[in-house]
Amino acid sequence: MAAVSTDQYVDILRFYAHQMSLLDAQDVKAYVKTFTEDGVTHHVHRGQSLDGRAAMLAHAEQALPRYRTVVVRHWNDHYLMERAEDGSFVVSYGSLVTLTGAEGVTRFESSYAVSDVLVREGDELLVKSRSLVRDEPAEG
Amino acid sequence: MAAVSTDQYVDILRFYAHQMSLLDAQDVKAYVKTFTEDGVTHHVHRGQSLDGRAAMLAHAEQALPRYRTVVVRHWNDHYLMERAEDGSFVVSYGSLVTLTGAEGVTRFESSYAVSDVLVREGDELLVKSRSLVRDEPAEG
Amino acid sequence: MAAVSTDQYVDILRFYAHQMSLLDAQDVKAYVKTFTEDGVTHHVHRGQSLDGRAAMLAHAEQALPRYRTVVVRHWNDHYLMERAEDGSFVVSYGSLVTLTGAEGVTRFESSYAVSDVLVREGDELLVKSRSLVRDEPAEG
Repeated sequence: MAAVSTDQYVDILRFYAHQMSLLDAQDVKAYVKTFTEDGVTHHVHRGQSLDGRAAMLAHAEQALPRYRTVVVRHWNDHYLMERAEDGSFVVSYGSLVTLTGAEGVTRFESSYAVSDVLVREGDELLVKSRSLVRDEPAEG
Repeated sequence: MAAVSTDQYVDILRFYAHQMSLLDAQDVKAYVKTFTEDGVTHHVHRGQSLDGRAAMLAHAEQALPRYRTVVVRHWNDHYLMERAEDGSFVVSYGSLVTLTGAEGVTRFESSYAVSDVLVREGDELLVKSRSLVRDEPAEG
Repeated sequence: MAAVSTDQYVDILRFYAHQMSLLDAQDVKAYVKTFTEDGVTHHVHRGQSLDGRAAMLAHAEQALPRYRTVVVRHWNDHYLMERAEDGSFVVSYGSLVTLTGAEGVTRFESSYAVSDVLVREGDELLVKSRSLVRDEPAEG
């Protein structure tokens, strides 16, 4: 693993700004296109893997009706970035999810630890795999 | 619209760090000076526009007493930045507002979508227009 | 005080991503090593100073059992950075602390204003002093 350059670090910040904006706008079609065609999302805390854009899209579209009555926002911080020998980027960060409902009342959904592998295809960065672990304490 | 360089991206991050610090410190006189003299703030969700530093300052000073009993903090994320042909920067981001009251009890105010146009005057960036939309769900 | 370069700004963002990840992982041994040997943490709001890594570690290890039942996360924003004449960096920012307990229920701990002095030792940045003030309103 190698350190990333300043340009790469900012490029990756930009990628997340773009991807999270699509996710928070509930534009699921554009969101899944920020993954590679065979990209994987692994929700570790519920033992669920979604393999490929089509599976992610089907899952997201099924979930959308639940999100008609809330605005979801992801607040990420503390991006750790490294470059693997194959040129991919390994990125991990924390993500705090808030929900704003009717009359602008905001509440917490939960917080997560996220680990991604990003690859470059042509001009753009895409997520090849994402692993999400919902925060839970060492003792219940 | 063109992409912004790494230097410009970081410069704009710095601008927001500075501007939000003034806002959160309730230093309204310094805050309005981070706008152009004719800068506009448009609170879309309540159909209110404040035109020019003087109008913003009058509005902010009127609101200050309400904020004597809370610490307000803005937590921004996912800055999307583009450069327009006239050299101005078009920046959008999410903003989560928290209030901390007596005895350090923190609560949500609300979350917002913000769109700014920034221009350079001499050495500094200034906001020419800001548009804020308070988050509310598609269905009530 | 001088402005920091783009490279320095991003370097310092990286430092905090690393340090906060250690803190949030409750890896207190690694966390105290992100301070200089004689580093100081000053909790202004409770009039407490911890002088040196050993004192910090003893304090942190004593506090750890309280954190077995929650995941703590720090969400920082609005980093203001300047370079002092002696080459150290003076950095201030806001920090929002959340706690996620059993069943993934997230709540606020509190919000803080933090001021750090960072110095370079060999290849790495280290905190020489940290001052934390818990937010409390002008009027109770």
